[in-house]
Amino acid sequence: MSDTSANRRQRVQSAETGMSVLKALARLGGDASLTAIAAEVDENAAKVHRYLLSLVQEGMVAQNAATQHYHLGPESVRIGLAALRQCDPVRMGEMALVRLRESLQVTCFIAVMGNRGPTVLRIEEPSLPVTVNMRAGSVLPWLWSASGQAFLAFSDDADIRVQAQAEFDAGNEAQRSMLAGPDPVARLCRQVKEQGCAIVIDTLLRGISAVAAPIFDARGRVVAVLTALGASNGFDARPGGKVCPQVMREAATISHAMGFGPG
Amino acid sequence: MSDTSANRRQRVQSAETGMSVLKALARLGGDASLTAIAAEVDENAAKVHRYLLSLVQEGMVAQNAATQHYHLGPESVRIGLAALRQCDPVRMGEMALVRLRESLQVTCFIAVMGNRGPTVLRIEEPSLPVTVNMRAGSVLPWLWSASGQAFLAFSDDADIRVQAQAEFDAGNEAQRSMLAGPDPVARLCRQVKEQGCAIVIDTLLRGISAVAAPIFDARGRVVAVLTALGASNGFDARPGGKVCPQVMREAATISHAMGFGPG
Repeated sequence: MSDTSANRRQRVQSAETGMSVLKALARLGGDASLTAIAAEVDENAAKVHRYLLSLVQEGMVAQNAATQHYHLGPESVRIGLAALRQCDPVRMGEMALVRLRESLQVTCFIAVMGNRGPTVLRIEEPSLPVTVNMRAGSVLPWLWSASGQAFLAFSDDADIRVQAQAEFDAGNEAQRSMLAGPDPVARLCRQVKEQGCAIVIDTLLRGISAVAAPIFDARGRVVAVLTALGASNGFDARPGGKVCPQVMREAATISHAMGFGPG
Repeated sequence: MSDTSANRRQRVQSAETGMSVLKALARLGGDASLTAIAAEVDENAAKVHRYLLSLVQEGMVAQNAATQHYHLGPESVRIGLAALRQCDPVRMGEMALVRLRESLQVTCFIAVMGNRGPTVLRIEEPSLPVTVNMRAGSVLPWLWSASGQAFLAFSDDADIRVQAQAEFDAGNEAQRSMLAGPDPVARLCRQVKEQGCAIVIDTLLRGISAVAAPIFDARGRVVAVLTALGASNGFDARPGGKVCPQVMREAATISHAMGFGPG
């Protein structure tokens, strides 16, 4: 949110300090001494102790009677579980889809891992969309779509690798020729990981290019993929081009909102 | 903790109000309107709004631009994951073991589900212990120990049922005679659930009785069992007797510290 001075005036400073003490304890692994917590928030121990008393009072923190260390309490567990339950990549990604559509004038969507493969859940199209046969509910291939490739490369699910290999073996000559080398699936995964996103040009749909980047949850698992696509002739799908960095940045923003990475 | 007036004076009231707003949002499922949150904490909306601004500032809460609803933010996820990681039933149960040992003068332990079955992790013995061949690392049977019965009855893991049935089929005449009826394992589970604890008298060890109650984690799964045991002649193992209610109460306290049940 924008930190205007009106906003700052309305806020409650001690509530924020209390939260920062709680976050510091979480950063320290959820268990630490008063000294360590005070050092982490860069405040004096007496002040931090007062906030810890309040956090204990509210059940957010508990203190070990033997070691005097503080640890995250049952209310922190409850809040975390409620937060995890409502952590939905589609919901977290709504604004990212709108931003991508507006700034690039491309079709973009979020796909999750359905039981039949990568499945489009939410799609945004510009006012003059390229005509693609893709809608909410569409299931995409692992190797011949950017979304599938992004799931494949960033997931460590062995089942997906097996399915991708089966797709390769069943592919036609034109498809197989796009993936080269002795272990083409592994090679593709390495390349996508190095790029940070998957790029396909005319692979799934003739004349259509697409770029897909992974969305991670708080535990570091790929839970969704953010994809942008457009007509190949007006779509800059180069790794450092117009589309890739922005898709990767928006995917990273969604991952962060899901609790991925440092605070 | 004891809420002495000295303690209360030192605490920071607004930090506590901030936490109570956050907890209210979690109780409301992690997503709610300002009106609903204000009603839940029983404060006026203007005041609650100021606290929400601070919670948003700290990343604990986020606001949906379209609906104006508030939901738990990425920092709440991070704190919850850190809290879950350090939620260890043995650590949470240390004090309960000491209290049980002192007040009942019995041997008591916490067992978790190991890969070979219920496994004792931490044991406390009175100064004059009854001699039992049980120590940290001991693996217990499903049917012939109170700990195993408590896991069996409160878990919905089908594998455990299968293993318990195999144990029954392999049991000797004396063991099998203790469990009656057409489906003795299911009957035992019902009985243990109704009692809220498992009771065995002279089953695993001659002359030894034991009482075990389940410890649940924040998701409601049995993650450990708290067991007290003693010489049958001096150990009141009746359901409403001296031992059962106290073991059940201490197990419930540990479950609560793990985040189980309402706050």
